[in-house]
Amino acid sequence: MNESIGRDERISVSELARRAAVSVPTIKFYIREGVLPAGLATSRTRASYGYEHLARLRLIRALLDVGGVSLATVKSVVELIESGTVDGEEVIRSAIRALGPAPRKERDGGARARADVEALVQAMGWQVDLRSPAIDLLAEALTVLRAAYGETPAIVLAPYAEVAAELAQQELLTRPVGADTATLVEWAVTGTVAFEQVLTGWRRLAHEDLSRRAASPGGTTPDHPGE
Amino acid sequence: MNESIGRDERISVSELARRAAVSVPTIKFYIREGVLPAGLATSRTRASYGYEHLARLRLIRALLDVGGVSLATVKSVVELIESGTVDGEEVIRSAIRALGPAPRKERDGGARARADVEALVQAMGWQVDLRSPAIDLLAEALTVLRAAYGETPAIVLAPYAEVAAELAQQELLTRPVGADTATLVEWAVTGTVAFEQVLTGWRRLAHEDLSRRAASPGGTTPDHPGE
Repeated sequence: MNESIGRDERISVSELARRAAVSVPTIKFYIREGVLPAGLATSRTRASYGYEHLARLRLIRALLDVGGVSLATVKSVVELIESGTVDGEEVIRSAIRALGPAPRKERDGGARARADVEALVQAMGWQVDLRSPAIDLLAEALTVLRAAYGETPAIVLAPYAEVAAELAQQELLTRPVGADTATLVEWAVTGTVAFEQVLTGWRRLAHEDLSRRAASPGGTTPDHPGE
Repeated sequence: MNESIGRDERISVSELARRAAVSVPTIKFYIREGVLPAGLATSRTRASYGYEHLARLRLIRALLDVGGVSLATVKSVVELIESGTVDGEEVIRSAIRALGPAPRKERDGGARARADVEALVQAMGWQVDLRSPAIDLLAEALTVLRAAYGETPAIVLAPYAEVAAELAQQELLTRPVGADTATLVEWAVTGTVAFEQVLTGWRRLAHEDLSRRAASPGGTTPDHPGE
């Protein structure tokens, strides 16, 4: 875990680098690129840094390392934070949207699948932006299912929505209270990347478990015990 | 939906191409690459194709287009099917494993997180290969959470396992009965890719919905109604 910093504490660039676990040249690069504010000049060659710099660095690293987004995307999220024109919730939603996905290849029937998913989302009464890339994910999945199995109503996706809503409610309990926007965005990006992988990982293991039980109903020994 | 074919029906290469929705040169390429068996020669320049060719072509397209794997990976799955040394269940598990993920970057604490996830999986009694890349997904997610929030016990991942196990049970009901191995692998690959995207998509939408409700507790109007 990165070290924290008091709200009023001032530190040097080398101490900032140590606590954020990044190098001093990296910090200077982020300042030049406009994603990290410059320090407060304390002499001609020295500057002091504070709480907001450490929070911003953690946000930048979360977006780059964990979220896997480009520096240009980091910049757009930072500009949104600094513009002050949107509230913290909108910044969080924008950051998650920035995680993608980039639209994948067009598939036959994609437009119809998207319309069907939009209609489902609206029927469920969820308050979401219908241009969200998450809806593209659902539409593409429905297109894949239809290509493989023929006509498939969008409603087959609904049980997954219930599950996701319950999990999201639980995840919300881990949201830091009274945190600044940079910290909330870091929380949202980390949680999105981590818990999506967790769902994917367990789903594959669950199918492997079911497949092994189907193959040897009485057996309890995995292929490679103890490896 | 691709057209099907009777178990004893014989068709020309151009008819096979039409029913599988791929081009004739693509079919010849797959034969040269060894992932599709050659047709049965009916003259010096003509051959006939049957049920197994269409099933194999659907499998190849599912792995390449939906699963996004390389032709080399398709080849390894096909070789496993043709070797006859493993049962259908093992072929299905291998195909899902072939979907990845490729291990991402090494992270500090990754080895300890993997050991913790392995211990959790064993404690749960799941019959899975502990070398599965799905366990790497879980371990990486745990490492990300620990980097952001400090020491985090692996048990926080457990509620997601219960959810995944229930969904996997339901998905199993869609498994084709009495199908050949190629068709079962196609089913497994399609389902894995589609339902992972479905979970990811709904999870993000659920958080967007919760975020909007938090921002305007009484409101019911999304940002861009009707767009």
